Amino acid sequence: MNEAAWFDEARLTEAAADIGGELHALVSRLYPICRSITGAGVRDTLAILSEHVDIAVREVPSGTQVFDWTVPQEWTVRDAYICSASGKRVVDFARSNLHLVSYSAPVARRMPLSELRPHIHTLPDQPDLIPYRTSYYSRDWGFCMAHRDYLALEEGEYDVLIDSTLADGTLTYGEVFLPGATEREVLLTAHICHPSLANDNCSGLAVLTLLARVLAGRRNRFGYRFLFAPGTIGALCWLSGNEGRLDRIDHGLVVSCVGDGGGPVYKRSRRGDATIDRVMEAVRCAGRKATMLDFSPYGYDERQFCSPGFDLPVGLLQRSAFGTFPEYHTSADDLAFVRPEHLASSFRMIMDVVDVLETDWRPLNLSPKGEPQLGRRGLYSATGGHKTTSDITMAYLWVLNLADGGNSLLDMARRSGLPFSDIAHAAMRLRECGLLGEAQI
Amino acid sequence: MNEAAWFDEARLTEAAADIGGELHALVSRLYPICRSITGAGVRDTLAILSEHVDIAVREVPSGTQVFDWTVPQEWTVRDAYICSASGKRVVDFARSNLHLVSYSAPVARRMPLSELRPHIHTLPDQPDLIPYRTSYYSRDWGFCMAHRDYLALEEGEYDVLIDSTLADGTLTYGEVFLPGATEREVLLTAHICHPSLANDNCSGLAVLTLLARVLAGRRNRFGYRFLFAPGTIGALCWLSGNEGRLDRIDHGLVVSCVGDGGGPVYKRSRRGDATIDRVMEAVRCAGRKATMLDFSPYGYDERQFCSPGFDLPVGLLQRSAFGTFPEYHTSADDLAFVRPEHLASSFRMIMDVVDVLETDWRPLNLSPKGEPQLGRRGLYSATGGHKTTSDITMAYLWVLNLADGGNSLLDMARRSGLPFSDIAHAAMRLRECGLLGEAQI
Amino acid sequence: MNEAAWFDEARLTEAAADIGGELHALVSRLYPICRSITGAGVRDTLAILSEHVDIAVREVPSGTQVFDWTVPQEWTVRDAYICSASGKRVVDFARSNLHLVSYSAPVARRMPLSELRPHIHTLPDQPDLIPYRTSYYSRDWGFCMAHRDYLALEEGEYDVLIDSTLADGTLTYGEVFLPGATEREVLLTAHICHPSLANDNCSGLAVLTLLARVLAGRRNRFGYRFLFAPGTIGALCWLSGNEGRLDRIDHGLVVSCVGDGGGPVYKRSRRGDATIDRVMEAVRCAGRKATMLDFSPYGYDERQFCSPGFDLPVGLLQRSAFGTFPEYHTSADDLAFVRPEHLASSFRMIMDVVDVLETDWRPLNLSPKGEPQLGRRGLYSATGGHKTTSDITMAYLWVLNLADGGNSLLDMARRSGLPFSDIAHAAMRLRECGLLGEAQI
Repeated sequence: MNEAAWFDEARLTEAAADIGGELHALVSRLYPICRSITGAGVRDTLAILSEHVDIAVREVPSGTQVFDWTVPQEWTVRDAYICSASGKRVVDFARSNLHLVSYSAPVARRMPLSELRPHIHTLPDQPDLIPYRTSYYSRDWGFCMAHRDYLALEEGEYDVLIDSTLADGTLTYGEVFLPGATEREVLLTAHICHPSLANDNCSGLAVLTLLARVLAGRRNRFGYRFLFAPGTIGALCWLSGNEGRLDRIDHGLVVSCVGDGGGPVYKRSRRGDATIDRVMEAVRCAGRKATMLDFSPYGYDERQFCSPGFDLPVGLLQRSAFGTFPEYHTSADDLAFVRPEHLASSFRMIMDVVDVLETDWRPLNLSPKGEPQLGRRGLYSATGGHKTTSDITMAYLWVLNLADGGNSLLDMARRSGLPFSDIAHAAMRLRECGLLGEAQI
Repeated sequence: MNEAAWFDEARLTEAAADIGGELHALVSRLYPICRSITGAGVRDTLAILSEHVDIAVREVPSGTQVFDWTVPQEWTVRDAYICSASGKRVVDFARSNLHLVSYSAPVARRMPLSELRPHIHTLPDQPDLIPYRTSYYSRDWGFCMAHRDYLALEEGEYDVLIDSTLADGTLTYGEVFLPGATEREVLLTAHICHPSLANDNCSGLAVLTLLARVLAGRRNRFGYRFLFAPGTIGALCWLSGNEGRLDRIDHGLVVSCVGDGGGPVYKRSRRGDATIDRVMEAVRCAGRKATMLDFSPYGYDERQFCSPGFDLPVGLLQRSAFGTFPEYHTSADDLAFVRPEHLASSFRMIMDVVDVLETDWRPLNLSPKGEPQLGRRGLYSATGGHKTTSDITMAYLWVLNLADGGNSLLDMARRSGLPFSDIAHAAMRLRECGLLGEAQI
Repeated sequence: MNEAAWFDEARLTEAAADIGGELHALVSRLYPICRSITGAGVRDTLAILSEHVDIAVREVPSGTQVFDWTVPQEWTVRDAYICSASGKRVVDFARSNLHLVSYSAPVARRMPLSELRPHIHTLPDQPDLIPYRTSYYSRDWGFCMAHRDYLALEEGEYDVLIDSTLADGTLTYGEVFLPGATEREVLLTAHICHPSLANDNCSGLAVLTLLARVLAGRRNRFGYRFLFAPGTIGALCWLSGNEGRLDRIDHGLVVSCVGDGGGPVYKRSRRGDATIDRVMEAVRCAGRKATMLDFSPYGYDERQFCSPGFDLPVGLLQRSAFGTFPEYHTSADDLAFVRPEHLASSFRMIMDVVDVLETDWRPLNLSPKGEPQLGRRGLYSATGGHKTTSDITMAYLWVLNLADGGNSLLDMARRSGLPFSDIAHAAMRLRECGLLGEAQI
C-alpha cells in the first residue's frame, strides 16, 4: 500500500473543488478548433494541452504503412461555403466547422441545386441541428446543415467553394509518459480528431490532460501513459510504433463523452474480466455505480486496442454512451451541453480508478479467530441493540472477515458491495491498530 | 466451410416459399389415420411418408425384450361405439378415432350406464372437446367424449362394442438414413403413435419428412438419421437395435407440435451444454429466439435418448410446449389449428439448425493487429459520423474481433447476439477478401 | 441411507402435531427472565431448558482471555427505577427488564432531568415501544422507555436507582452433545443473552431444546452439538475451548427469531457453497422456500464461526431477518408476537434439515438404458394422455434420470426443484423395486 497516496488524495479532494471550472475553461478553448484526423487542428489542440502538461508531439508521414492501413494525406481547410445566386452564403464554414464534411476534397464551382443536393447531409428528425459527418477514406466532399434550412433552399444555381488541400504531410498525435516506481503501465487515451463537439471529445481531452498534471505531481506505482490521437489511424500509429512494449500495459481506459450528466457507462475490455473491468465495478461517479456493458467491437479506439492481435486490457469509460444521447454528433454537443460539475465528477471517478490501481493491497487479519474486539479500539458503537450498523462499521467487519490473504481490497469491495474508498480507509485504520498485516504473495 | 451449402440455401429459400402449403397438405393426409403404438395405422402413415423419401420400415415382433420392456401385441380396431337402447350411436369411433381409448381391449356387451361410466373420459373444463387417452400397458377399454354430450346421456342400458384385436404381431417404425461425408450423425425424430391430432404429431412427421427430402438432394458433412417411431417403446426398440452405433450421434432433436404459431420452445438435452443446445440459441423461428428450458425427464422420446445409460446430446423442439396449449391432446388439435405458415417457419428453423451444423467453422483473422481497413474493400460505410451502424457491419467487426482461432461461427453468434446466418455470411465475405483463414485445430 | 430415519420421521410428524403448543409454552417460561451476557439470568434459563434435555453447564471465570477478548465481570441486578419528586416510579425495571440498559453500572442519585436525559433511550418513530439497548463493553448506565412517556416527563429532580453489581464471577453457557454413529458433527446454536424478547431469542432456545430432545431419542449418523451461549463472548469461549476439535464440524446453523410468521430467510456461510448452504435450498418452511442471502459479517454468532481463522460451514436461519421487522429489539417482541404454528413450522424445517443430512445418499440406476417400465411396478399412471403428471411421478423420473452415480439425493432435489422429501421417498420406493443400488464412492 502506497500510504503517500492517501495523503495526496486528501490534498487532491481539496484541489478538485475547483477542477470543474478549470476543466470547462479548457474545453471552451478546445471547442472552436477545426480538428480532423490530420492537419493543423490537432497540432493547435496539442499546443493548448501542452500548457498544462509536457506533451511529446509525434508526426507520422503521409503514406506510412501501419498494419493494414496507410497514413492519409494532411488536410488543410481555409474556407468553405455555399453561396446563392443573390450572393448570400446559405452555408458558411466560418459559422460552424460542422458545416463542412470533414476531410472534404476541394471544390470551386457553380452548380444547380439538383447537383448539390447529394452532397448535403441533414437530420430530418432533428431539423434545427447540424450533423457531424466525415469522409476520411473515400475522396468526396459535402456540407452539413440544419434540415429546416435545407428545406428553405430555393432552386437555382449556387456557388460552391471548398478551399481545402489534401497533400502529403504528417499525422500528428500527442503522448505523455509519467514514469512510475515499476515498469508496469496504465494507458489513458482520448481521441483528438473531432471538430466542434464539446462532449465528444473536448471533454475527454480536458479531463485526461488535467489528470496527467495531477499525476505528474506525485510518486506513482504505475507509469501513466496518456495518448491524444486521431481515432483509428492515430491509435494504429501508436500501436505500430510501440508494438514491442505493449506487454507493459496492465490496465487501460479509453475516455470520451465525459462532460454530460448521464451514466457513467463502462464497456468492458474484450477479456471481460480484466482488473480494469473489476475496478470499474468498485468506483462510482457522483455516487452512482457505472452501467456495465460487455465488450462489443464498435465504438472508439478500444476497437484497436482490443483487436485479437493485441487484446489489451482496455475498456471504454463514458458518461452517456455514444449514439444514445440526442446531442451526439450534432451541433447541440456544444459548450452548454457539458457542465463543470459533470466534468469534475468524471475527473474524480478516473482519479478514484487510479487510486484503486495505486493503493490496492492484500491484507492479512492478525487476529483471525473470531472478531477482534473493535469496541476497545474505538471502532465499534459503545451502545448495542440498534437495528442496523453504519457503513464504516460494515467496512471494518468485511475487511477483517475477508483478510485471509486471498482477497485484495478490490476483491473486498466487490464482495461487500461497499465503495473501494470505504474499504481502503477501513483497512488503513485496522492496520494502524495492529489488526492487519500485508499478505505475502 | 462447405461453400456448396450456401448456394443450396439460396435455392432452398426459394423452394421454401411454397413449403408451407405442401407441409399442410401432408399433415392433412396423415391426420385421419388411427395410429397407435402398434398396428396398421403406423404402417399406413409410413406408406404416405414414403412417397416423399425412401423409408426403411422396421418390424419388431411382439414379445421382443427391449431393455426393461417387452414389445406389446399388435392392436387392430375395426369398429367401436356406444349405442343407446333406442339404437342411436351416442359415441362412434367412425366419427373420430379419439372417441376410443387407444389400445382398448375388445368388448361387446349391453350394460347399464352406471357400469359404463367409469370407462368414459371427458374434460369438464373443456366441455365441447373430446380428450385423447391411452391404455397401453394396462389391459383396459374406454371411450372419450365431450363432457356436454356425456351429461346428456340418459340412464338406461347401452350396447357397447369395441371390435378390436390384441394379438401377437409386430411393432413398426420407419428410418431414413442419408449418409454424409463423415461418419458423424445427426438424429432427427418424431413420434408416430398419436391418432387424429394434427399438431401432435402429424406436424413433426411432415416437417421431418420434407426436410429429409431436401437433405437427400445435397451433399452433407453429417449423416442424417430420421426416425419415425412410436413413443417410448419405439424409441427403445431403435436404441436397442443400434446400441453399438450410438457414439456416432453428435447432435439430435426430437420434433413435435411444430404446426401452431407459438414458441419456439426448446428443451435442452440432459447435458445442458451440448452443441445442439448452443445451436438452438443461435437460430430463430419467424424472427423469434427460442424460449430455452432446462432438461426435465418428462416429455417425448428425449426421455429415452437422455436416460443415464445413453445420455445422448438430444433436445426437444416445439412451437408451443406440450401440455401448455388448450388444444393439446383434444379434438381441437385439428387441421385448422396447424397453419401452413407455421409449418413453414418451423421447417426453416430446423433447416437453419442443419445449416449451422453443416457450415460452422473456426476462422482466423489474418490481419489481427487493429481492424483491417474495411472501407477500401467496400465493407464499411464511406461516410462516417452516424449514430449506429448496420447489423452487417457489426457482423464483420464481430467476426474479425473474435477470429483468434478460439471461436467458431457459432461461438461468435452467441457472443454477438447476431443471427448465425449474419455471422456466416460476414465470415464468407471476409474470407473472400483474404482477411480470414481457417484455424487449425 | 438410514432407513430407520424414515420410520422415525413418520413417528415424529405425528408427535409434531402438538409441538407448537409445547414450544410456545417453553418460550413463555423463558420470556420473563432478565438475561444478559453474564449472570443469573443465563443460569435460570439453562435450568429450565435442562428439564427437557441433559445440558452441560460451563462456567468461564471473569478475566479469562479468549482470543482478542477478556471475559467480563458478572452482572447482577436487583432493582432499577426512575422516581419523580412526587414519589412516582416513572420507569420501573420490575415492570419490564427492557427498561434497563443491559449491563448498567450501579447508580443511586437524585439528579435533574437535564442530567438524566442523555441516559434515556427511546424510539421516536415507534413512540409506544420500549427499545432494547446494551452497554456491555463500555461502563455506562441507562434506561429505555416509550418515547410517548419520555415526552411526558416533567422538568425537575428525579431519584435514579440502579441496584446492580459488576463483580468477578463467571460467564455461563450450556452445551448438549448427542453422539452419532460417526465422529462427524453438526453444530446447532442459539444465543441466550437477550432479556424479555420472545422471538429474539426465546424462540431459538425453545426450538433447539426440543429438537435435541427428539434427536436424543434416536440413532443418528452425525453427532449433534447444541450450544446455548451468550452472543459473541459466549461463542468465543466455546470456540476457544474446542479449538482442537473444530474440524469435526461438517455442518452448522445459528438459529434465531424463529417464532414469527415471516421468511424463512437463510444467510449462507462464508464459504457460500457449503453442504448446509445447499441443504437450505432444498427444504421448505410452511411450504415456502427460504430467501437465500449471501454471507455478510453482521448478525449473530455466524460472525465468529465464519471468521477467517475458523471459516466453519455455519449459516444463519431465521424466519423474519433481524432488523427488518418492526418488533425487532423492542417491547413488541413479546409472547403475542410469536405463535405456536410458526414455532412448529420452524421446528419441522430444522428437523427436515437434519433428515437431509442424515438420509442423503447417492443412488445408481440399475436399469439405466431408457426408462424402466414403471407402470408394471405400479409407479406410473395406467391411463396416458393427461396434460401433466404428478409430483411423485416426476420424482421417480428425476431420480432415475440423475442416478448415474454422480448425484446425491440433495443434488437431485436441487436440479429438479422438488422437495428433498419427495426425492428421498421416490428413491426409497425405486430401491425397493430393485431399480436402484447405492453408488460406490
